[in-house]
Amino acid sequence: MMEKWFVGVDIGGTTIKMAFVTGEGEIISKWEIPTNTANGGTEIPEDIAEAIRQKSAELGESVDHLQAIGVGAPGFINMDTGFIYQAVNIGWKDFALKDLLEKETGLPVTVDNDANIAALGEMWRGSGDGARDLLCVTLGTGVGGGIVANGQILNGANGMAGEIGHNTVIAEGGMPCNCGKTGCLETVASATGIKRLAMNALADGSPSTLADLLEQHGAISSKEVFEAAELGDEVAQSVVHEVCFHLGLALANLANALNPAKIVVGGGVSKAGQHLLDPLESEFRRFALPRVAEGAEFKIATLGNDAGVIGGAWIAKQLS
Amino acid sequence: MMEKWFVGVDIGGTTIKMAFVTGEGEIISKWEIPTNTANGGTEIPEDIAEAIRQKSAELGESVDHLQAIGVGAPGFINMDTGFIYQAVNIGWKDFALKDLLEKETGLPVTVDNDANIAALGEMWRGSGDGARDLLCVTLGTGVGGGIVANGQILNGANGMAGEIGHNTVIAEGGMPCNCGKTGCLETVASATGIKRLAMNALADGSPSTLADLLEQHGAISSKEVFEAAELGDEVAQSVVHEVCFHLGLALANLANALNPAKIVVGGGVSKAGQHLLDPLESEFRRFALPRVAEGAEFKIATLGNDAGVIGGAWIAKQLS
Repeated sequence: MMEKWFVGVDIGGTTIKMAFVTGEGEIISKWEIPTNTANGGTEIPEDIAEAIRQKSAELGESVDHLQAIGVGAPGFINMDTGFIYQAVNIGWKDFALKDLLEKETGLPVTVDNDANIAALGEMWRGSGDGARDLLCVTLGTGVGGGIVANGQILNGANGMAGEIGHNTVIAEGGMPCNCGKTGCLETVASATGIKRLAMNALADGSPSTLADLLEQHGAISSKEVFEAAELGDEVAQSVVHEVCFHLGLALANLANALNPAKIVVGGGVSKAGQHLLDPLESEFRRFALPRVAEGAEFKIATLGNDAGVIGGAWIAKQLS
Repeated sequence: MMEKWFVGVDIGGTTIKMAFVTGEGEIISKWEIPTNTANGGTEIPEDIAEAIRQKSAELGESVDHLQAIGVGAPGFINMDTGFIYQAVNIGWKDFALKDLLEKETGLPVTVDNDANIAALGEMWRGSGDGARDLLCVTLGTGVGGGIVANGQILNGANGMAGEIGHNTVIAEGGMPCNCGKTGCLETVASATGIKRLAMNALADGSPSTLADLLEQHGAISSKEVFEAAELGDEVAQSVVHEVCFHLGLALANLANALNPAKIVVGGGVSKAGQHLLDPLESEFRRFALPRVAEGAEFKIATLGNDAGVIGGAWIAKQLS
């Protein structure tokens, strides 16, 4: 009997990433379709179902080869029912994603938060390396989090667990955040936040290689900020210090509570690699309890854009 | 057939609290013995076994009536093996508590951290009311924590989960903490920390009813500080604001990560009741994500000193 495959689906504001994945977490085939936000996103379940049929046909496989679908979605989700209360980027409001997708595909569907499935992907097949206690932080346009404790993803009382990007790191006078609060971790440690800090640091005209990059390309990436800091640029170093101080302190406080074996850092900002991890770990170790710091290993996420679809397949596998 | 009982044991630096508890969490009998710290605490397993035999005899019951023992202990513990790496207050170092107590009693034994079993007690029979996602904070001489997520206590990678008393709330210039760091939550929100803040606030001679209490009794309790604040004493209000600001912010950041249904506040400081919860919740709601705040209910712990033995019985019950 042929081993069945799982379908991992990672729904973003622009594209929907999809993959057929084996029970061991190996990707058989992966592809993307555009996110159709017309009509309040109501056509998305049909689009996903059609994409699954097409890809199966293309691979010469029957849809019977598929066991279940695991979906990561943005927004506020009821994980038990797969109901999306609201996902602003997609246009969904009170949208029965699980039911609709089950109807369109005839397959069992399970839905979780996009940051959570990325954390599960890293736990299963990425740098989490099977750790049963894992803290994942994604530094992208925003800051997302996923927490695995006792081998399970934490969803919390109403699906909000892992929202560490909105931990307050500057209690008074912080920058406004998209969530309506101010001084959230996301305002300083996201790609957007880091670029803003760099632009502010350059505003007084201090000499910096970042000023040259800005002049040449009209923009600075967070990776360039970390590289310039490593090469001794003082403006870049001050920005890196500010980012790593706040992020390191926030992660240390979470680690005292969760005592993770791995802290996995992903998202666009993590492309800075060791230039990010070295100063980050040094701040973390100032603030974490020594035994907590001993127990925690920092890792850059290794699955990149595949984390979501692999984590989607993992939650689909839990259905069987 | 008679329903078996579980033995809950809560080992502290001065006394060992013990109880026989039914499978429904009802206390049949509870008592205390002194903690014998002589000889590095090595006689404690024997003392506990002897106390169990005596109490059984006193109740006219055979020891066969007992099913299992659940122990809460201070210090650094390996929960899987019931091995205590170190418990400074008791004198234990590399102490095989579980094995020794099983040998002395002939009953299966499970060991967890004292703050964790108190949290489990509150979850099972106290103000946690069976919530599967629960954050417990104990404001006593120190600040302890216990986290229940997905219905399970979190232990973490090396038994340190829940150590939220050592979350850094004052990053620069905070008071030294017993853990070796500075500015820990414990330095401001423990009974000791609150009294210190009150003494500092009185040091400049500001008029305050607390100054009168201090003169009359030579000491101020944290409960008196909260009561004076409620009655409009400005010195007391400034102390309460400082405590609740730091504690509310720390709990909000943890709640964004854990999304608990209940936040249970226990320990001596919680005797202030609503005088503590009102200002604390107000700070919490400033910093928690709105949906996280909506999902979280604050409660004063209701089991008091019984939380540990009831939680001990709960973990013993999980053995069967």
